[in-house]
Formats: sequence, C-alpha cells, structure tokens
Amino acid sequence: MPNDTATTRIPAARISDLIKRCLMAVDLPEADAQITAGLMADADLNGADGHGVFRLPGYIKRIRDGAVNPRPSIRIDREKAAMALIDGDNGMGHLVMKYAADVAVEKARECGVGWAGAHHSNHAGPAYLYAKMPMAADMIGLYVAVGSANHLPPWGGTEMLLSTNPIAVAVPALDCPPIILDMATTVAAYGKVKTARQRGQQMPVGWMIDKLGQPLTDPNRSDEGFLLPIGGPKGYGLSLIFGLLAGTLNGAAFGKDVVDFNADSTSVTNTGHFVVALDIKAFTDVEGFKANVDAVVRTMKASPTLPGFDEVRLPGEQSFAKRQDYTDNGIPLHDTLLDVLAKTAADLGVDPLV
Amino acid sequence: MPNDTATTRIPAARISDLIKRCLMAVDLPEADAQITAGLMADADLNGADGHGVFRLPGYIKRIRDGAVNPRPSIRIDREKAAMALIDGDNGMGHLVMKYAADVAVEKARECGVGWAGAHHSNHAGPAYLYAKMPMAADMIGLYVAVGSANHLPPWGGTEMLLSTNPIAVAVPALDCPPIILDMATTVAAYGKVKTARQRGQQMPVGWMIDKLGQPLTDPNRSDEGFLLPIGGPKGYGLSLIFGLLAGTLNGAAFGKDVVDFNADSTSVTNTGHFVVALDIKAFTDVEGFKANVDAVVRTMKASPTLPGFDEVRLPGEQSFAKRQDYTDNGIPLHDTLLDVLAKTAADLGVDPLV
Repeated sequence: MPNDTATTRIPAARISDLIKRCLMAVDLPEADAQITAGLMADADLNGADGHGVFRLPGYIKRIRDGAVNPRPSIRIDREKAAMALIDGDNGMGHLVMKYAADVAVEKARECGVGWAGAHHSNHAGPAYLYAKMPMAADMIGLYVAVGSANHLPPWGGTEMLLSTNPIAVAVPALDCPPIILDMATTVAAYGKVKTARQRGQQMPVGWMIDKLGQPLTDPNRSDEGFLLPIGGPKGYGLSLIFGLLAGTLNGAAFGKDVVDFNADSTSVTNTGHFVVALDIKAFTDVEGFKANVDAVVRTMKASPTLPGFDEVRLPGEQSFAKRQDYTDNGIPLHDTLLDVLAKTAADLGVDPLV
Repeated sequence: MPNDTATTRIPAARISDLIKRCLMAVDLPEADAQITAGLMADADLNGADGHGVFRLPGYIKRIRDGAVNPRPSIRIDREKAAMALIDGDNGMGHLVMKYAADVAVEKARECGVGWAGAHHSNHAGPAYLYAKMPMAADMIGLYVAVGSANHLPPWGGTEMLLSTNPIAVAVPALDCPPIILDMATTVAAYGKVKTARQRGQQMPVGWMIDKLGQPLTDPNRSDEGFLLPIGGPKGYGLSLIFGLLAGTLNGAAFGKDVVDFNADSTSVTNTGHFVVALDIKAFTDVEGFKANVDAVVRTMKASPTLPGFDEVRLPGEQSFAKRQDYTDNGIPLHDTLLDVLAKTAADLGVDPLV
C-alpha cells in the first residue's frame, strides 16, 4: 500500500519538524512540541500510519478549539512505592504517557515493577511507543489505553460502549530485533478504517459489521456499523477489562463517557492509559534473558510453515523492516495526506513540508 | 452439556473430600491436599469442568511417577519491594500459585502493586482461581500462565511451539457479581478438547485445524492438528508474549522446552506463571470504584442486542450463574468421569465418591 504511485517519500526528520512547527503555532512550548513531534514521526517510521502525521490536523483542531491544553502541568496525583496515578492536566497524550513511562521506569528501578496510570490525558498515538520506552532501561514495557472513540458494542450488542482498547508489550532481545506486540482488541484498529477511507480503499470482510450483523466494507459507511472484536466474546472481554484498568481505575472516561475525539473538537476527553515497567534484572540476568529471547525468536523463525505462508513472523517484525526501509528511504506519505498537511501548514502560517 | 441425562449431581464438598483423600494417598500433607482439593472443586463449581476433578487421575499419575513433588518447599528466590520470583520446588501448581497470590497481595499492600512470578511449578487449574484471590483484599487480580502442553504453532507455522497461554483478570464490583475474564489465547482451551473427547462429542469448526490448514472436528484426532489463536496473528502474539512473561522471564519452560504433561508422567515441567495484585485504594476510593464497576455492568446489560442474541453478558457471568446452580444443586459429573474417579479411588485404596 504505502509504495503505490500516489505516495512521496519524506525523511522522518522533516515530518517531525513540520509537526513541531504546527504544534508550536498552537501554543505548545518548544520542548513539548519536540517530544510530541518526535513520537508522532516515530509512529510513521514504524508503519503505524494511522497514528502518525495523519493525525496532525485533528490534533491541531482540538487544541485550537480548546479541547486540549497546550500547556499542561502534568503531575503525580497519588503514589505508592511501585505505582503512580498521573493527572495529565488535559495535555497531549504523548506528553502525559512519556511522563508516565518515565515514572514507571523509576518505580521499577526501585521496586522491580512500576505501574503508572493516567487520567485527563488525550490520544497518544500508537501503543508501542510507550511499551518501548522501558526497554532503554533493560526493562519490559506494557501499555494499555482506553481508545479515543467507541466503535465496538459489547458482544451480542449494538450500542457502541467500547473502544478498540489496545495493548502493547515490548520485550528486548540480544541480537534479534525486540519482540513488540501492538494490537487492538478488535480485528482492525479504527485508524486503519480512517486510512482506508482517506485512500478510497474498501475494507476486507471481518473488520466491521453493520447494525444487523452484516459485513460492512465501505469505509465511508463506517458510521453505520462497528468494529468486530478478536475471538468474539474474548476480544470483547479484553476490551472491557482494559477499559476498566486504563479508564475506571484511573478515574478516566470509559464506556458511555468516552468522547469521540474524531467527531468532537471541543470536549475534554479525560483519556485513561497506563504503562507498566518490569525490571528484568530483578528476575534474572539481563544478558541471559535477552539471549533466551533470541533463542525463542530463532526457534519460531526456523519452524516449518503452513501451505500459503512463506515464513513465520514475530510481533513487530514487519514494523522493524518498515522502520529500516523508511529510515533509509523516507516515509511514504500519500498525496491526499500531503495536500491536507500543506493546507494545515498554510492555515497556521508555518513553513510547509514540501 | 452438563445437564444431559448422563450426569449425576454431586455436592462440591464431596468432590473436594475425594480429591483430598486421593492426594493424601500420594503423600501430600493434609493441609496442602486440602488447599489443592478446594481449588480443584472450585473449578468444577465455576463450570471450568476441563480443569476440576476431571484432572485428578492425571495429577495422581504424575505424582506417583515422580514428575511432581508432593512435599515441596515453596520459597521466594528473588525479591524487590513490589516483585518476587518464587521457586515452586516442583510442587502442585495450585499450591505454588496460591503462595504467589499471597505474596503479590502483601507486596501490593505496601507498594500499590505486587507482581509474583514462579518457576518450577506445575499445572494449576483454571486461571480465574488466582486472579480472584486478590479480590479478598479489595485488589484487582491478574494471572497469566504458560500452558502445560503445546497445541499451537506460531501464526502461519505448523510446529506446535506455543500453548494456549491463558490470562485471567478479576475486577470487584459492589452489588453486581465481579467481572472475571478467564480466557485462553486460542479460540478453545485444550481442556475443552479433552472434555469433548471424553464425552464423545464433535468439536465445532474453528477450534482446531490439521497440518494442511483444514478444519479438524474429531477430538480423537486432536493429535493430528492444532488449536487456532483468537484473531489469527493477534492471538499468536498474545500467546507468545504471555509465554515470555510467564515462562522465560521467570526462568520457566517456554516454547520447545514445554513438557506435554498429558502425554508424559515422569518429566519435570518447570511450569511458569505469574500473579499481579493491584491495590484499588492506592488509585482511588474503593467503594466508589466498585460502584463505578457496577455502573459499567448495568450500562452493558441494559444495551440493545443484535438479532440472534437474547442479552449482553459480562465476563464471568455464566460462571457465576453456574456457581449458584452448582452450589445449590450439586456439580454435574458425567458418568464416564464418575467411572474414572471410582477406579482412581479404588487404585489408591481410599473411600470412593459415590
């Protein structure tokens, strides 16, 4: 998809610079704009193109319309030795969850595990970003969020009370790429629906159904249906539990209180998420653990395949390959997106991307 | 299923007593036999009939054949303020994970969260048992295990390197039943396959495929195929990550090192699991949280249904109803199972169930 003729390759640094300029134009402090821009461009670099610069116009609109605080005082609300509850002060989710990941790592350094939840946060991009952060301290990272719009009914229901509530877990390896799982609890994340719509592509059967339970494949009709959970009632159960842990426990929105941030640019979302850092050396020798992860990776890769599959892949493997390609050759941005970004830059009076 | 004509209702206490007698006959101390028997009978009470007294003959055989230590010295190997790594000394998994849950709760009382992993443990029955334990201390519980036999290849592969690696999470409510998710990362848990085989029932399409990728519905042919993960690559990813966290991180078996405890009665399995306890009062007011969970439950229950569904259910709701029925009317045990249990008791020279 990203390599079709309607895309242009742009270096990540230039995308990040554009985002930074735009965020500063809507009053984010330079350091905060830099962090947010770096994380958004990282999403594109990782192939999470429904969560990268694609989101910029939506973020800008919400900041301009007063729904997001461009200058938050992010702080710890409550804490114990191994946990913290963070008040995001309605800042950009990227800033809140970067802060939360740092807190979780500090707690884990002391206690072996650190759990940092947040309320009054906002959409923070792809889940893997925050699961990866503890890896720099030789820790395993785990991240769960309440999705920023409800697209999923409870199993057997028709009222969209749940979101795709994603989970990401990052486990470092020694010589192999880290294993990084980043998944929605639905068959497809809603960002993929939005990307398909913007590109004029149909969705495969199995992503969404309509209110009668029939397959829905036209992304322009996505408002008329809902996403399907993985494993039917199991994916529903995971989404519900993740919502209780990332939302309700943190005093953040969950269920009917979730604001659809795509449709509403003025309401505070009170988004909830959490990051867990798990210090490997509390459990075992770090190098030995990483070597054991390598051994798992190599065993999986060396195993025989079913008819129709060319190889076994590890979670994060395709993103890792994209990251290498996009780092070397630039990130493919669709022409439709480039037009939107040109308009965004012009509206804000900042230098354009191209 | 459990109410067909080939079942007899037996009170949980009598099932527990039989299990206790049998375990003491193979050298478990009385207190340990009592704990294990109580947890196994609880599984039956909860409707987890693939993990209750059904497992007794297999457990007995493994203890008698020297694969499981009937008198373990379960102890903490390594610990920090919020984590512990427990050496199960190859004892019954129920004992090891009861110990782990107690440790996790104590850590969480101090630190807000407690994470207790274990190695050299054994099969511990259904996951919900250990997720529920922290609820008694007004905590949320989470449990993950490496399954005790590999029935799942990596996505796209044919070598069974993974197990159903289940997760359970228990969240207390105020007036409503607690929300208790207990799920395998496969469409069906392998216990369900064993139950279908013992009952002479066919499996639905979607539980298993054969080595050519074709549906496999005869449970007598289960050795010729493998279970399917939920959400395809996503369920595979979850199983892999849970295996790394519950197995590799704890120094327990994962991947090709997993011993099939159904087929092998003499090898030490080095089973890995972990329990996390999350202290609600570290985050928020406990009663207020529980009331919010009630509100979530009621919103879900009151929401409209799809054609073909009579109501929306919460995770654990069907088990809760079974528990009430079975507590009042006894647990339905299939006649085939009753025959097996009669033989087990006779072999051990203990009083039979009926």
